[in-house]
Amino acid sequence: MTARLPRVTVIGAGLVGSSIALAVREVGAGRVVLVDADAGVRERAAALGIAEQVLGSVPEAVGDADIVIAAVPAGAVPEVLSAAAVAAPRAAILTDAASLKLTSTLDVTSRLSDAKAGPERFVGGHPMAGSERSGPEAADAQLFQGATWGLTPTAATADATLTELSTFLRRLGARVVALPPAQHDELVAVVSHLPQVVASTLAAVAADAIEATGDAVLAVAGGGFRDTTRIAASDPALWIPILSGNRAAVLEALDAYAGRLEQVRVAVAEARWEELRTLLARASTARQRLVPKATPAALAALADVVVPMDDRPGQLATATTALGAAGINVEDLAMRHAGDGGRGALLVRVAAGDLDRAVDVLTAAGLGAHVEHDAAAPGSEDASP
Amino acid sequence: MTARLPRVTVIGAGLVGSSIALAVREVGAGRVVLVDADAGVRERAAALGIAEQVLGSVPEAVGDADIVIAAVPAGAVPEVLSAAAVAAPRAAILTDAASLKLTSTLDVTSRLSDAKAGPERFVGGHPMAGSERSGPEAADAQLFQGATWGLTPTAATADATLTELSTFLRRLGARVVALPPAQHDELVAVVSHLPQVVASTLAAVAADAIEATGDAVLAVAGGGFRDTTRIAASDPALWIPILSGNRAAVLEALDAYAGRLEQVRVAVAEARWEELRTLLARASTARQRLVPKATPAALAALADVVVPMDDRPGQLATATTALGAAGINVEDLAMRHAGDGGRGALLVRVAAGDLDRAVDVLTAAGLGAHVEHDAAAPGSEDASP
Repeated sequence: MTARLPRVTVIGAGLVGSSIALAVREVGAGRVVLVDADAGVRERAAALGIAEQVLGSVPEAVGDADIVIAAVPAGAVPEVLSAAAVAAPRAAILTDAASLKLTSTLDVTSRLSDAKAGPERFVGGHPMAGSERSGPEAADAQLFQGATWGLTPTAATADATLTELSTFLRRLGARVVALPPAQHDELVAVVSHLPQVVASTLAAVAADAIEATGDAVLAVAGGGFRDTTRIAASDPALWIPILSGNRAAVLEALDAYAGRLEQVRVAVAEARWEELRTLLARASTARQRLVPKATPAALAALADVVVPMDDRPGQLATATTALGAAGINVEDLAMRHAGDGGRGALLVRVAAGDLDRAVDVLTAAGLGAHVEHDAAAPGSEDASP
Repeated sequence: MTARLPRVTVIGAGLVGSSIALAVREVGAGRVVLVDADAGVRERAAALGIAEQVLGSVPEAVGDADIVIAAVPAGAVPEVLSAAAVAAPRAAILTDAASLKLTSTLDVTSRLSDAKAGPERFVGGHPMAGSERSGPEAADAQLFQGATWGLTPTAATADATLTELSTFLRRLGARVVALPPAQHDELVAVVSHLPQVVASTLAAVAADAIEATGDAVLAVAGGGFRDTTRIAASDPALWIPILSGNRAAVLEALDAYAGRLEQVRVAVAEARWEELRTLLARASTARQRLVPKATPAALAALADVVVPMDDRPGQLATATTALGAAGINVEDLAMRHAGDGGRGALLVRVAAGDLDRAVDVLTAAGLGAHVEHDAAAPGSEDASP
């Protein structure tokens, strides 16, 4: 990718694909082409002016693309990206937007390897934003503003693929998080799929109780009930493919949940209130830590770590994975390119409280790391090292 | 009670008692007297002008009362209302505001019967509104606007007691629901206590998973996780007395929940997707029925506005000031970071009924603002190719 704006092809004109196309147009691109197999959907997307061109075939849409994004169902990703890989320029970056990553990432990688079609330029993606609406009519250029966008590099992924795509996605307003595909699927089982099952089960139990006694109005009363069951109202048709596609991880999460719930049940049954208090206190602390209320002061307390990089592959993945494994949240990430000898540096912005630990963790992972003393915004890629 | 406005005595100057006193003053009353045993609390309540008089002893505060409301912990209700019954006029209505009803209702009724102090003029009450704040400083005259207020008459309660108190509470904006005390406690076990346990357990399991893998950031990503675990952040000190006070009903609710969850687990384990679809569909229908849209209670639900921020200083202050000036209460506030170039977003949680107005106000203040799409709702990947 050169300094010029990238030419982007988005495959799939559903809510996410159309929103990506709109968002890319808004921040500026060499050109944006949208592809959809459905002529009716193409017509609607074109009428809405979602992309400069709306085409029906992948090969004709990717011929000059710098970035190809497949916003199609997980099952269709390997086929769509294989077709794109053959027709796109050799340097084009390929990614997808499916919410499960392990199966499709491995499948795409092995197909591209087998076809000698450049597996190093592919990295799986998962924009964690959506809407209850669907189709190009629901497209929203702001959909990814502030949203987390997971990227799931493998050993086959080139560093440049990850860094260039990250930079591109941050321009759309997304917060990029890199993690291995298996870990991605395990985490979403816990933070997305398990909450859905838990909320649905709670709504079902409340329905049982209220059908028996007939006093629905009390359910409406509690903000706690409203919040805890809100996602239970989702359409099951959307969830079954996700739960079945991530079955092993969902089962593991369900077992962990049932085990913890049994601890609570026993504590209540045996009136062990001190034990219950400890369980609830731990959960309370965990919730406050996982979903912190950001204060302006806390936001100000950020600091930068500099990680010098050489041209060995996988250093970026090593760094982000090591920080992730240590529970250190990367607030911001940027590459500094050095003029001399190709050695640049990765600038990692973390909470000031995590600074020392971040240096330790990166050092332990075999990377050089030191505290940045002139903490200018790491976004400026032309900062001199 | 005659056509003249009732003289009201509220015992307990905590959040609920002080809010009742303020609400009563706002709708008009013969007089409002507040009682608290703590001299410091009395002083603060008096300084805040929460009631016309703030006294330290129950007998001197109820001598001419038409309605006496004990807003004290459940364990203190019988003693406080027994003392009030003796000193208050024979026609005065007596009620309380504790969140559990069976034990205290039976206890008060039998004490008043034994003392021939008029058990027919007592009915237990439970205003289903609150706040994480406490004390007279947190008092809010609007706290009961649209809130459900349970009343739990027994065979001893006179019809006039129930109807007159209902009329009075509706003037405070409450939605009054009468039901037997045992049924009240069983229902709140399901719609209030069980959600607390479910949410806390989910937060604990997520904390386990994230401590193991280290990627806290994904938890923040999902609106579903945020909502489903919100009440897990509560102070356990508030919940232990409730869970222990309602132990039998809580255990029954937990057993029902564990049973339903096991059905889901088996369906996932044995890949019975049609059965799982039926379970989820039933839950979805139940949730939509239990928490219907466009009711006052649904309006009390919360919703998020996303305000994209750039690195101009003072945007946070602009947003909060604009909302404050428009009388829109900010229920919660968080930053989402984008990463590159400082473009993150501010997440502002407001009452759903204020949502459109909040977007208008923020837009008028020169900020971009849009409604948060539900990141938990899948479908983002369901774009048609």
